[in-house]
Amino acid sequence: MPHALVLRRRVQFYETDAAGIVHFSTFFRYMEEAEHALWRENGISIFPAQPTHGWPRVAASFDYRRPLRFEDEFEIHLEVTRISTRSLTYGCRMIARGDLVAAGSMTIACIQRDGEHGMRAVPIPEAIVALFSPSSPEASADKPASPAASADKLVPPLAKADERA
Amino acid sequence: MPHALVLRRRVQFYETDAAGIVHFSTFFRYMEEAEHALWRENGISIFPAQPTHGWPRVAASFDYRRPLRFEDEFEIHLEVTRISTRSLTYGCRMIARGDLVAAGSMTIACIQRDGEHGMRAVPIPEAIVALFSPSSPEASADKPASPAASADKLVPPLAKADERA
Amino acid sequence: MPHALVLRRRVQFYETDAAGIVHFSTFFRYMEEAEHALWRENGISIFPAQPTHGWPRVAASFDYRRPLRFEDEFEIHLEVTRISTRSLTYGCRMIARGDLVAAGSMTIACIQRDGEHGMRAVPIPEAIVALFSPSSPEASADKPASPAASADKLVPPLAKADERA
Amino acid sequence: MPHALVLRRRVQFYETDAAGIVHFSTFFRYMEEAEHALWRENGISIFPAQPTHGWPRVAASFDYRRPLRFEDEFEIHLEVTRISTRSLTYGCRMIARGDLVAAGSMTIACIQRDGEHGMRAVPIPEAIVALFSPSSPEASADKPASPAASADKLVPPLAKADERA
Repeated sequence: MPHALVLRRRVQFYETDAAGIVHFSTFFRYMEEAEHALWRENGISIFPAQPTHGWPRVAASFDYRRPLRFEDEFEIHLEVTRISTRSLTYGCRMIARGDLVAAGSMTIACIQRDGEHGMRAVPIPEAIVALFSPSSPEASADKPASPAASADKLVPPLAKADERA
Repeated sequence: MPHALVLRRRVQFYETDAAGIVHFSTFFRYMEEAEHALWRENGISIFPAQPTHGWPRVAASFDYRRPLRFEDEFEIHLEVTRISTRSLTYGCRMIARGDLVAAGSMTIACIQRDGEHGMRAVPIPEAIVALFSPSSPEASADKPASPAASADKLVPPLAKADERA
Repeated sequence: MPHALVLRRRVQFYETDAAGIVHFSTFFRYMEEAEHALWRENGISIFPAQPTHGWPRVAASFDYRRPLRFEDEFEIHLEVTRISTRSLTYGCRMIARGDLVAAGSMTIACIQRDGEHGMRAVPIPEAIVALFSPSSPEASADKPASPAASADKLVPPLAKADERA
Repeated sequence: MPHALVLRRRVQFYETDAAGIVHFSTFFRYMEEAEHALWRENGISIFPAQPTHGWPRVAASFDYRRPLRFEDEFEIHLEVTRISTRSLTYGCRMIARGDLVAAGSMTIACIQRDGEHGMRAVPIPEAIVALFSPSSPEASADKPASPAASADKLVPPLAKADERA
């Protein structure tokens, strides 16, 4: 039941732009690729053939430090940094040749369909909370000390760490 | 009931690649943009909220003559070049500053859902055939003389014209 | 010399995903589209044929409120919310049918090439600072009262406003 | 010195569209991914840091048989089907669960920069011709019997085979 994952990836040509580097919007696709790989590692799909829940993104951000170029190899370090009742936050770092390339975060909500095009936020199923909850002591060091303080206020620890850097 | 359309467009930065030109896969997106604009011109959506039919692509091709670069303005000339019972073919030309940039074609089939993930080809609804059928004498000059000769053999006239050029 | 712009746009099919909505990464492309349109409104290109400066993105974020679907019409409201010596920040709001769809921000740095693949941050040319500086009283209300307080600390006012909402 | 390659791949979410399947333009990106992997297998990059030649696409096409969906695993079978003096053609087949999903081809030209934005077709360097030339008897069966007959007329054998199917 991993709550974190490292994905190795190579930059594809169609991910670059005329400035010769990976387009900044592509990093969000990389982060999502790692997210879906993490769900598969836990034996589930975020978008199965008969979905009972949906997982729309409610926030996403990246800070960029270094460019990536065509054929660069890099690692996507993704971890679940926070689970609240109705949402889940990931922290993400891209690393190439040992250097930080970009750090980001993404928060997704748990929803169910409500009529034709409606959707309403619902609690994340217990089984999924269990899959993504960090169980090791190091991992829990990333979590807010007081559960009360964290209720539905989404603070990505990775982003915080970056501010110190 | 137009069966053809010219769409003016400007190259966006995210459509370019590290070679400094529009990525070749993007031309297929441009062609589809013009297709959907043509359907809207005819008062219909190719993918409405409650679709009765689907229109998967069965073939698509482009010949590239000149590159497009960031912020280039160009025109997408799209026309329905052929309608058979179950499929419809477009010819497409991209023009920038009076020069041919690329010429392509795309054939779509008319399908209906069949069970969970199945689909089967069905005849194009008469109302849609009527919308896209060329009515002017010049336009019909593009169509095969004999209906028998054309039966479900998809020949894009635009591509033919290119071979002569 | 506008420092803000509203761009009207329609959702293209290739911008949607299997959940039936615009993929979250696409919003960053929309924001950039509006950015480049704003530069053109000011008579300049962010990536001319012979660039003297580069403008890599150093941060980008979005908060998502409502989904966009195929063929939805929407507006991208973009404004320069901050200019520091070496970077420039935009605030962005997507509006559809009068409702807020997403709010984001993006910070770009001004760089010059340094050797083969190197780049170093340089001051934004005065002429460009002048183009993007808000001149109206309402606009300057968005800017920090004290220049000292703002020195190279990038705070997007739009995001702040959202927290109050 | 392989002239063919099989690449295993999984469908990513951002590659799907609102119809629930991989967008047809994405197949061209898959084909290019396999192309660049094939060049790397031969120890070269199609777009190195200091390129001496460029390889613009002059034609690309796909025939689609079956849809691909999110998380589907599939194989990209790519092979060099033809080398002429100034261009090179690939045939490509996508296979999922043993079924043909799509078959396509792509022709690239060999060019060199000529002034600012100009490019002119030049002969493919001998070393590269050698890398991609099929050497096995079966492979050469795919090539035209007479070199004279093939001069710069680009016929993708894979597409031909499909017509028989």
